[in-house]
Amino acid sequence: MNNFNPVELLIKKRDGYSLAPAEISCFVNAYLKGEIADYQMSAFLMACFLQGLNKQEIEALTKTYIDSGGTISFAEGLPVADKHSTGGVGDKISLMLAPIAASLGLMVPMISGRGLGHTGGTLDKLESILGFRTSFSLQEFKELVEKHSFALAGQSEELVPADKKIYALRDVTATVESPGLITASIMSKKIAEGAKHLVIDLKIGSGAFMPNINKAKELAELLMTTGKSFGQKVTVVFSNMNSPLGHAVGNALEMIEAIEYLKGNYLPDTYELTTVLTAQMLISTGKAKDFEQAKKMIDEAVVSGKALEKFREIIIAQGGEPKVLEDYSLFASSPVIYPIIAKQNGWVHKIDSRAIGYALVHIKAGRKKVTDTLDYGAGALLYPKIGDAIKQGEKIGEVHCASKNEAEKVAELILNAYKIADTQKDKEDLILEIALSEE
Amino acid sequence: MNNFNPVELLIKKRDGYSLAPAEISCFVNAYLKGEIADYQMSAFLMACFLQGLNKQEIEALTKTYIDSGGTISFAEGLPVADKHSTGGVGDKISLMLAPIAASLGLMVPMISGRGLGHTGGTLDKLESILGFRTSFSLQEFKELVEKHSFALAGQSEELVPADKKIYALRDVTATVESPGLITASIMSKKIAEGAKHLVIDLKIGSGAFMPNINKAKELAELLMTTGKSFGQKVTVVFSNMNSPLGHAVGNALEMIEAIEYLKGNYLPDTYELTTVLTAQMLISTGKAKDFEQAKKMIDEAVVSGKALEKFREIIIAQGGEPKVLEDYSLFASSPVIYPIIAKQNGWVHKIDSRAIGYALVHIKAGRKKVTDTLDYGAGALLYPKIGDAIKQGEKIGEVHCASKNEAEKVAELILNAYKIADTQKDKEDLILEIALSEE
Repeated sequence: MNNFNPVELLIKKRDGYSLAPAEISCFVNAYLKGEIADYQMSAFLMACFLQGLNKQEIEALTKTYIDSGGTISFAEGLPVADKHSTGGVGDKISLMLAPIAASLGLMVPMISGRGLGHTGGTLDKLESILGFRTSFSLQEFKELVEKHSFALAGQSEELVPADKKIYALRDVTATVESPGLITASIMSKKIAEGAKHLVIDLKIGSGAFMPNINKAKELAELLMTTGKSFGQKVTVVFSNMNSPLGHAVGNALEMIEAIEYLKGNYLPDTYELTTVLTAQMLISTGKAKDFEQAKKMIDEAVVSGKALEKFREIIIAQGGEPKVLEDYSLFASSPVIYPIIAKQNGWVHKIDSRAIGYALVHIKAGRKKVTDTLDYGAGALLYPKIGDAIKQGEKIGEVHCASKNEAEKVAELILNAYKIADTQKDKEDLILEIALSEE
Repeated sequence: MNNFNPVELLIKKRDGYSLAPAEISCFVNAYLKGEIADYQMSAFLMACFLQGLNKQEIEALTKTYIDSGGTISFAEGLPVADKHSTGGVGDKISLMLAPIAASLGLMVPMISGRGLGHTGGTLDKLESILGFRTSFSLQEFKELVEKHSFALAGQSEELVPADKKIYALRDVTATVESPGLITASIMSKKIAEGAKHLVIDLKIGSGAFMPNINKAKELAELLMTTGKSFGQKVTVVFSNMNSPLGHAVGNALEMIEAIEYLKGNYLPDTYELTTVLTAQMLISTGKAKDFEQAKKMIDEAVVSGKALEKFREIIIAQGGEPKVLEDYSLFASSPVIYPIIAKQNGWVHKIDSRAIGYALVHIKAGRKKVTDTLDYGAGALLYPKIGDAIKQGEKIGEVHCASKNEAEKVAELILNAYKIADTQKDKEDLILEIALSEE
């Protein structure tokens, strides 16, 4: 494939033909070497977005991404499992799931991302703990996992650099939400990090990028097939992202909610989702026979305090201040705590979780651009879920931020995100469906 | 439209929604100012390519292109007409048409391009005349047209700079062959140069980018509608580009063929096409009532020598050496003239004109990249057309170039471009159809 013409390859994809594995690796590698310009890669990405990628193309792209950097291999037969979420509002599940799973004998090499747009990021939440380090070389990361059964880190420069470079371009060229490109991006990271079992929390609804279950199933099928072709067992949990998860949205607030969880102070929705996702990891690795057994193990891990101790262990190992587990005043906090007051009686029919996520970007609980700085103490607590009854004048949440002026504005934006009507509304299921790749 | 988000606009186009005129002008102008990166523009172009542009969007894009630079206005009521060809192999029609039309009282502000890939460019052919200058300011160009009734120049930096910048990006991102983008690109130039009547030679076949008449009609409809919305009358002539035009392909060779034409030494195909296209200009401007009258005027312009004199006039006005009209040795010539000999008896069933164009790029009769230099003397003479009978051992053409070694290779490539079979084959019509925009 020397001396290949990038424009001919662009024409082929643009006109709906599928590309050979060598064409894909050649194009991507030429891009990494600087032989293909950003503007040609972005035209390629838009053509892939609109013409789609078939399974062979996705597999080739995933392999090219993996081969672009270093990989981690754990000893054969070890129960290495990970969870990936497609991103939601108030999604702090990883913070509970990873220590619980590690305390139950799984090895969890969890590589997480930062928040962008309306969704938060696990790394940002972890960094609200004083001193907590999330940047490691692949070798250091592997050693952490081998020693502590888990580690919570960011994507090292060594791991799938092709995905890192191309993702940055997708983000600014409206080519993110493509099933094929998403699959290669997720799967390359999760395969390169050495996970043999992967549970994917595929979120659907107002706070997710997947609007409906049909689109989500298409993506799930690609994720499972791609995982299988690299020897990875993939389970997809379709979850409802119409209401923000738990109460807290914002970095330190979510971290505190996660610690409370590990102390046994559950909220119903985060309990259900954490349990289902962790259970799938236990079932996939053969640590549990079925959901009932897995649930008992998970409950016991929290009640016994083992999960909290596992979390303390990793905080110390990653340079964080373990006293935060007992003393929440060590977290950044906000000078203003402003109540969100319901303006009418009725039932919550809809919540625009995306709008809530974007509202909180104003007070630096999230980022508009990757270079934006965060206020770890900023965020909101939000109590009602879809189907809940609320009363005029009732406090339905609170905004935490630096000034009253901003708090008022954000409280108003959040209130507008709740569609209240005076007819009763059923609560919604959180777990919609579970799909497993065939053996 | 201040502070607009380019990614949101990209998403809108990507998802198949149409853009408002203000959105299009905003996006393009932000690109010209450097506020939008090349990679965002190329993603936009690929989205436009694959999702299409509707008439309102094309009109808005055309207007944005026009408004990005200076324009020429001739006095109201003057018969200002131009011809545009979508590009072919051996297409030297402009070289005859422009002086003929000018000698018949039309004003022809002809702005032409350079050759790229398999197609040649009028500017390159003109520059094979010693001293001939093709670069003028808009004001100089206008004065030439006002004084000599025509001018033959390249696109000034002042004219539709947006198209110039975006076309360069389209060329390297596989986003050229989009009806909407092509329409805005052609029409913005032809409207900005002040032509009130436009005849478009829309080529179909092996040497053109339009594979069939249905695609061509779609484009013709867009060209006519867009012209109309800017007060320009557009006539589209659909012509067959399965055989190269005339005998000569190559810059000086084509120039000599054009001069011979103006001396009355016609070839059948170039005579037919030149006459039809010039006639449409005369009919559109009201200089001729019908084709019969126009044809008489055109024949008379050549026979009388007026057209040749008009050409001499513009060569002098544009700094060229007028002696070339009588002394062809003043043109660059090639040391090697190598015969192309038929290897079998039969009839010509197909000619891959595109392959011929690309073969000639090897000997610098054309360009692969815009920065490639040309050998004005290089090229080929090719006699047979589709439907002609040829005999084994017959000389069917000749290659002109710098070395025998290259000549042999190119002769072989050209021979391979002729599909010869031993069944008789009908000749093909050159003019397929003529479409006029309604008044």
